[in-house]
Amino acid sequence: MIHEPVEESALRDLVERYFRTSFTTENPIITEAVKKMLAAGGKRLRPRLTLLAIEACGGNALDNLHLAAYMELIHVATLIHDDVVDRAQTRRGVNATAIDFGNRTSVLAGDYLFAWIFKNVTAKYPSPIPEVLSTTLAEICDGEVLQLRALGDLTTTKDTYITIAKKKTASLFAAGAECGATVARGDAATIAALRRFGERYGIAFQMLDDLLDLISDSTALGKPVGNDLAERKMTIPLIAALSRGDAAFRAMVERYFNDTSLPSEALIEGIERQGGLDATRAQMRVEVEAAKRALQPLAATPAKEQLCDLAEALLET
Amino acid sequence: MIHEPVEESALRDLVERYFRTSFTTENPIITEAVKKMLAAGGKRLRPRLTLLAIEACGGNALDNLHLAAYMELIHVATLIHDDVVDRAQTRRGVNATAIDFGNRTSVLAGDYLFAWIFKNVTAKYPSPIPEVLSTTLAEICDGEVLQLRALGDLTTTKDTYITIAKKKTASLFAAGAECGATVARGDAATIAALRRFGERYGIAFQMLDDLLDLISDSTALGKPVGNDLAERKMTIPLIAALSRGDAAFRAMVERYFNDTSLPSEALIEGIERQGGLDATRAQMRVEVEAAKRALQPLAATPAKEQLCDLAEALLET
Repeated sequence: MIHEPVEESALRDLVERYFRTSFTTENPIITEAVKKMLAAGGKRLRPRLTLLAIEACGGNALDNLHLAAYMELIHVATLIHDDVVDRAQTRRGVNATAIDFGNRTSVLAGDYLFAWIFKNVTAKYPSPIPEVLSTTLAEICDGEVLQLRALGDLTTTKDTYITIAKKKTASLFAAGAECGATVARGDAATIAALRRFGERYGIAFQMLDDLLDLISDSTALGKPVGNDLAERKMTIPLIAALSRGDAAFRAMVERYFNDTSLPSEALIEGIERQGGLDATRAQMRVEVEAAKRALQPLAATPAKEQLCDLAEALLET
Repeated sequence: MIHEPVEESALRDLVERYFRTSFTTENPIITEAVKKMLAAGGKRLRPRLTLLAIEACGGNALDNLHLAAYMELIHVATLIHDDVVDRAQTRRGVNATAIDFGNRTSVLAGDYLFAWIFKNVTAKYPSPIPEVLSTTLAEICDGEVLQLRALGDLTTTKDTYITIAKKKTASLFAAGAECGATVARGDAATIAALRRFGERYGIAFQMLDDLLDLISDSTALGKPVGNDLAERKMTIPLIAALSRGDAAFRAMVERYFNDTSLPSEALIEGIERQGGLDATRAQMRVEVEAAKRALQPLAATPAKEQLCDLAEALLET
């Protein structure tokens, strides 16, 4: 089928319009909770990756808005649950779902959304799409459990970090790109290439998220600065800073992790002084280059170029 | 395929052995949390219904222990999440998962288990099994949200109660029976009959659960007596008792719902005096008879008889 490729700038609008006009579940309260979370923002990077993967394989993004939307909805469902267990007050600058709807409805809304997605995926898409998505959700949870185990553990290595980031974050980007390429009937090598792009993109994305937690401001983040530190998360800037082996810095981290009500400004400065921010930027560059390299075998298309641009954009911080 | 039908008493043992020896996930912490919940007990009625439905259609229960196990695991995952949001201390007489593993791991363990089930179901079973199970999970959540909305609402009707019970409880029994009949290649009428059996059985089961909350003791329940009242749940005994129109009783319910720290003994006596317990037993009899009637078109088999016995057993309280 010959069609005009959709401009990348139009993809986000397409996804937005889909959520505003077509998304509904059989339960009005859950629909409302999800729409509220969607309306609060988000860059819709996951569905954009799916739609670009479709276009990169010569498919038509417009035919598969559902599939792209599922990627964002899986993400939204995990966020709703995260906010319940983290007792988050805000998400993307507005009330967390649990604040407006209560913990019970929030847990149920997340569960319902997972079920609703699988119901629709299995009804609309043949194997292996349903398997890929359920495997991905299992990986996300697995990664989050591993992250919980590593909380406050100063011996966490970069390898462990990458394992966790691959599972909890990159797996969904990888699955989104893979599913997009699959429905567009890409050949096996192209599907694998787009999956690999999604995975490396996702790792860089997680690293950027870690970085922004330290250098952004709370308005832009929609949550407090240094939130990851307060949760004693072993982020890549912190791991990189600790790897310098400075005993005083290590003691400072231990002190803060023993009492996260202490101010975190000095610790953030310490991470920067130990080169943690620069090391993170360097590592992000490695991942972005690997992502772009994964796409080299693909034919030159506007979508391929747009995927590379999206990856490069992660470095503009 | 000719085979000896498995004795009903052996089905529970088969399921137990499956959980002890074959059940494992890729995440050891989650496997441990789920096994702990499984070891705490439960009558495994959902998998038993599935296995009996298989046998009733001439299939071999032993070939489908996985499928039966998924029914129990969907139930376990919803229980793990229920306990997080209810802040339950105990479940089946032992610590709730959230007490031993923390809220975060518990929410993630439930999510992971859902994903793990769908991953395995989509890999092992063709359409419509995956759709039936994801639709069922959506119905369970939908029913639980409806139940939350009805909490403390004294105008809740028996019809609303039945709608909620169908979704939150009976849908899984119905799906279990339907899936069992489907994998055993029952004809359409037989599949529908077994689904109908599961649904009416499930409604009666929920009514028994409501009844036991009032008349059992906390050791047998594994949770406090009158727990539903303390949660301001509109159970069938309470709805039936309120339907008598006794103003003093209604005022008593309102008083308790305004302050559930008050003792509930007088209220439980009031429900009994208003005929709420007898009305519940009568309603259960209606559902059990309807369940048995659904099976009338089926050929006489030991499994059919055992299903009828399971339904009758609900009335032996």
